[in-house]
Amino acid sequence: MIAHSFRGELFGPAQRLHGATYVVDVEFRRKSLDPNGVVVDIGRAGDALRAVLSELNYRNLDEDPAFSGENTTTEWLARLLFERVAARIARGELGSGSEGLESMRVTLHESHVAWASYDAPLST
Amino acid sequence: MIAHSFRGELFGPAQRLHGATYVVDVEFRRKSLDPNGVVVDIGRAGDALRAVLSELNYRNLDEDPAFSGENTTTEWLARLLFERVAARIARGELGSGSEGLESMRVTLHESHVAWASYDAPLST
Amino acid sequence: MIAHSFRGELFGPAQRLHGATYVVDVEFRRKSLDPNGVVVDIGRAGDALRAVLSELNYRNLDEDPAFSGENTTTEWLARLLFERVAARIARGELGSGSEGLESMRVTLHESHVAWASYDAPLST
Amino acid sequence: MIAHSFRGELFGPAQRLHGATYVVDVEFRRKSLDPNGVVVDIGRAGDALRAVLSELNYRNLDEDPAFSGENTTTEWLARLLFERVAARIARGELGSGSEGLESMRVTLHESHVAWASYDAPLST
Amino acid sequence: MIAHSFRGELFGPAQRLHGATYVVDVEFRRKSLDPNGVVVDIGRAGDALRAVLSELNYRNLDEDPAFSGENTTTEWLARLLFERVAARIARGELGSGSEGLESMRVTLHESHVAWASYDAPLST
Amino acid sequence: MIAHSFRGELFGPAQRLHGATYVVDVEFRRKSLDPNGVVVDIGRAGDALRAVLSELNYRNLDEDPAFSGENTTTEWLARLLFERVAARIARGELGSGSEGLESMRVTLHESHVAWASYDAPLST
Repeated sequence: MIAHSFRGELFGPAQRLHGATYVVDVEFRRKSLDPNGVVVDIGRAGDALRAVLSELNYRNLDEDPAFSGENTTTEWLARLLFERVAARIARGELGSGSEGLESMRVTLHESHVAWASYDAPLST
Repeated sequence: MIAHSFRGELFGPAQRLHGATYVVDVEFRRKSLDPNGVVVDIGRAGDALRAVLSELNYRNLDEDPAFSGENTTTEWLARLLFERVAARIARGELGSGSEGLESMRVTLHESHVAWASYDAPLST
Repeated sequence: MIAHSFRGELFGPAQRLHGATYVVDVEFRRKSLDPNGVVVDIGRAGDALRAVLSELNYRNLDEDPAFSGENTTTEWLARLLFERVAARIARGELGSGSEGLESMRVTLHESHVAWASYDAPLST
Repeated sequence: MIAHSFRGELFGPAQRLHGATYVVDVEFRRKSLDPNGVVVDIGRAGDALRAVLSELNYRNLDEDPAFSGENTTTEWLARLLFERVAARIARGELGSGSEGLESMRVTLHESHVAWASYDAPLST
Repeated sequence: MIAHSFRGELFGPAQRLHGATYVVDVEFRRKSLDPNGVVVDIGRAGDALRAVLSELNYRNLDEDPAFSGENTTTEWLARLLFERVAARIARGELGSGSEGLESMRVTLHESHVAWASYDAPLST
Repeated sequence: MIAHSFRGELFGPAQRLHGATYVVDVEFRRKSLDPNGVVVDIGRAGDALRAVLSELNYRNLDEDPAFSGENTTTEWLARLLFERVAARIARGELGSGSEGLESMRVTLHESHVAWASYDAPLST
């Protein structure tokens, strides 16, 4: 549940400081299941996602120096979350078996009708 | 899609400036249908709701003098929207037949799991 | 999945022959559960609802003499379905225990945002 | 995510040991908001609900002596959860302000189409 | 919200004139974001989709000479809408930046359980 | 609505006998429509899926000898259902035209937030 504003005439009234609830889904993909019979340890995956989201939740993104000069659009945030979750996978936070993950899709729903995804391979 | 902040320890990190997407539903009720066979003219009702929402959408509610000293919580906003839609009904904006409306419920969904409603009779 | 048209300027382009998918929910209510621990036999209730819907499904409602002179709006259809399901309950089609049902709500969803309900006591 | 079985011909194949995911919603109601502008402290309410659910989650309800002789139907479970959440409210677990709660509705969704609720006043 | 009928025994009762509500989603894809940080100008994209839908909405498709000899199934309509939206993109109606769009998916939901999509590259 | 248990520390409390409601979606894909203008005969496809599900519904999967030594996780079940539906397609149960089907995706939703899919070509 973040606040932010956008720069550019394209955005009309969204150039004003406003906000959004983002409901975030992550889809993990692999060719075959790990020895436990799962794609990913859903408990650890949820922990990693909650950790990534807690860095952003209940904040005004306009004040985060890391985002200076960026429009923190839904699609831009989808890539940001992808990269932060991917970094946690690369560090082994999702446990043994997660090295078999091949690609991932992060989707941010900003309302009942609008959403954006970032979908890419996971480097190994 | 509004920005706001809350005062009170209860709110934890939501005391910071943050934001929310509210998906708004309005339920209109009456004992019997009007001569056209409808509860309400859904076109006019949608126009009235859009007009009420446009007064708030893409704004920082902390800066609206009308809300000074209030926590603009989901439940508080549900009542605000109820009263503003009810005032438009009382002014006849929903057309002939709308005088038969008896009660109304306004629901704001702030995420896929959290919502609040205000449900009350319409004064006649 | 029915076709129909409406009479009255209120309806704008819906005065033309058009159609709708209605997704129908029925809510049954009672003060205490029956001896099996249920509100209603959900199997029989589903059969009764499917029987009622099959009388209307894949039809042009403008051609049904029973509806002559009526606008078959979503709210009007909600009451029609209520009465037809209620008649089946009164005939005992929902089995022993169903005499304890006290009220019922029939909801027709016509899209992801628009719906209408008819909610009333069941006469005993 | 529980396992259970039912007794009674009414239940057909559900007389066998089977299982269900229940998605649980709780609706809290009061006449006017508390001094913070909320119906309930949603954080504490969520904690209380999670505590109640954890007593049941990932279990075979047929083996719980407290449910001996009962059909643990969706509607029966809705009342059980209502009473357990209500007891926590009565013990003050939802914090100051929660004494103003007047009624509550607990809904268990057992699939995308089937659900049951228990809706009652909260004794004070 | 259209009326239509189908030819072919496969369709059973849907050979009669009936109707459907179609809820339409369009997914736009590109490799990298445009200079504003978006995939597409969602305002213009919504306008283009509404224009395409208004050519069909509240009509009996059996009477449209352009569809003579066709079964206007959900999957056939998905391709029709894809082609009409794609033509508007090619004409520049979605504004500067839209030339970077690479593929698109149009989905028509005809009920809570049934849907069809057409998914293809956008020619450049 | 099945009961089962998992082996492996990864699963925590889900090592106990518990259960789940699975809501199952199947997506069929082909390059061009069949002569009737459809991807698949949705009536026959639904029959085939119901037949496959009835082999599992209202059962304790731990007692099925065919699953001995397997963790019947959501993702494992997605593949099982894929293979059983694919076998019915190969046997011609979906009727003339179904030989044009190219790939299929089976998704099991186990709650409002968790799901798994198996997505693969259909061998011809």
